[in-house]
Amino acid sequence: LGELIFVGLGLDKETDLSLKGLEKVKKADAVFAELYTSLMPELSVQRLERLCAKRITVLSRRNLEDENGEKILREARNGTAVLLVPGDPLIATTHVELRIRAERTGIRTSIIHGSSILSAAIGLSGLQNYKFGRSVTIPFPVEGSVSETPYHAIAENRKAGLHTFCFLDINAEEKRYMTINEGLKILLALESRKDQKVITNRSLSIGVARAGSENPTVKAGFVPDLLEFDFARPPHTLIFVGSLHFMEAEALVVLAQAPALIREMVA
Amino acid sequence: LGELIFVGLGLDKETDLSLKGLEKVKKADAVFAELYTSLMPELSVQRLERLCAKRITVLSRRNLEDENGEKILREARNGTAVLLVPGDPLIATTHVELRIRAERTGIRTSIIHGSSILSAAIGLSGLQNYKFGRSVTIPFPVEGSVSETPYHAIAENRKAGLHTFCFLDINAEEKRYMTINEGLKILLALESRKDQKVITNRSLSIGVARAGSENPTVKAGFVPDLLEFDFARPPHTLIFVGSLHFMEAEALVVLAQAPALIREMVA
Repeated sequence: LGELIFVGLGLDKETDLSLKGLEKVKKADAVFAELYTSLMPELSVQRLERLCAKRITVLSRRNLEDENGEKILREARNGTAVLLVPGDPLIATTHVELRIRAERTGIRTSIIHGSSILSAAIGLSGLQNYKFGRSVTIPFPVEGSVSETPYHAIAENRKAGLHTFCFLDINAEEKRYMTINEGLKILLALESRKDQKVITNRSLSIGVARAGSENPTVKAGFVPDLLEFDFARPPHTLIFVGSLHFMEAEALVVLAQAPALIREMVA
Repeated sequence: LGELIFVGLGLDKETDLSLKGLEKVKKADAVFAELYTSLMPELSVQRLERLCAKRITVLSRRNLEDENGEKILREARNGTAVLLVPGDPLIATTHVELRIRAERTGIRTSIIHGSSILSAAIGLSGLQNYKFGRSVTIPFPVEGSVSETPYHAIAENRKAGLHTFCFLDINAEEKRYMTINEGLKILLALESRKDQKVITNRSLSIGVARAGSENPTVKAGFVPDLLEFDFARPPHTLIFVGSLHFMEAEALVVLAQAPALIREMVA
């Protein structure tokens, strides 16, 4: 009976792989990777191949979506196939369909988890996980048209005192990775249209760049501070702050260079 | 100058460690671990010590809270100290204070991320990360008194069509780990008191046991189904479902044995 294992690659480079994940790759009959759902800045497929002593077939979005992952399923029917995925596999829609299709045709599936931007950016920010509301993606504008979803999510979360995790869009095929600066500007354009005082000069936010790398940058401040700040290379993520617990405020000041006056914003 | 590295241990056993994390432990001057914030069912400290070729000092909650982590800070002042932490470090309040104290006294700090129950249980459930509202912990009753917070969080999230991630309380000192069954019974007791039809026989929920292990159990169903289901050994977590996307419904049926009629509940 065949088997398909989704192995999480983590955040930055090949050594983000867990020991358990490495073992699975070493024993697999066929190893695939998709690298278009997240940017892993220091990943080298060649070094990863050497580490695992395996050839790795890198798949495009077309291989996985239009061709329904047939390449992988073919291998998984006759042996053990591994699909390497950035972060922790299967927390977004991507690949869930592949997993369902595999199980439906009698292929056993399992997940080897990896570190995820979701928990990593929260840990780096100094904020507390249970104070986050729903998260959103800020998508690239399509022909000048901008999604209002992030604006509304930030507004609703803040009304409930909750923080908002904003994933920033990526288009790996075109090597476009939205920066914190671009994300903020999209939100400010929405603000000037909606005028509901959701994103103002007094909105506290946190930029996290290159989470999981050797040199992550974490900077908290008001929107104008972050607009001026150089976060350097992608990937970037953005967090909007709801109400602050005193320990969170302390963490933002000491660990993320927030202005000391945010201590007075504690709920 | 001193250094303190928080290294995530992941979910289940010592091989959940990343290659990067293993390197940091091997090079450290002193290695500590806290194992009271989560249960890692298959972890052996002895095997971990052998793997890293290092002695590991396991710290109690008292060492870290009452004694302000002085043992760790002492080592971190003169060299490189590692604190091993289950899951992905620093996503909850625990240890943030230690990190702040270290930085304030000139000790450099950094995080090596690990797999977290937060993303792991979402990935295993088949639900989509961006459809989760705020998460909550269901705490053990204290002298018969029960926190209403989880009940309200589930109600508010569901009103917004969002899922709720329920962490289940643990008390490692007493080796008590709340089961899905216990968590559901606490919520049902709250329901019978509040009577707001938040937790009913038609509430769809998902139990996830031993995420990250070789044999995780994931079972979706209505509350009475889950009450009868044997999830076996801890750790357990519980998810309450908001509105369902068709792919989520499909995933719950195929991957988590949900009753097929939930396909008709798609929003």
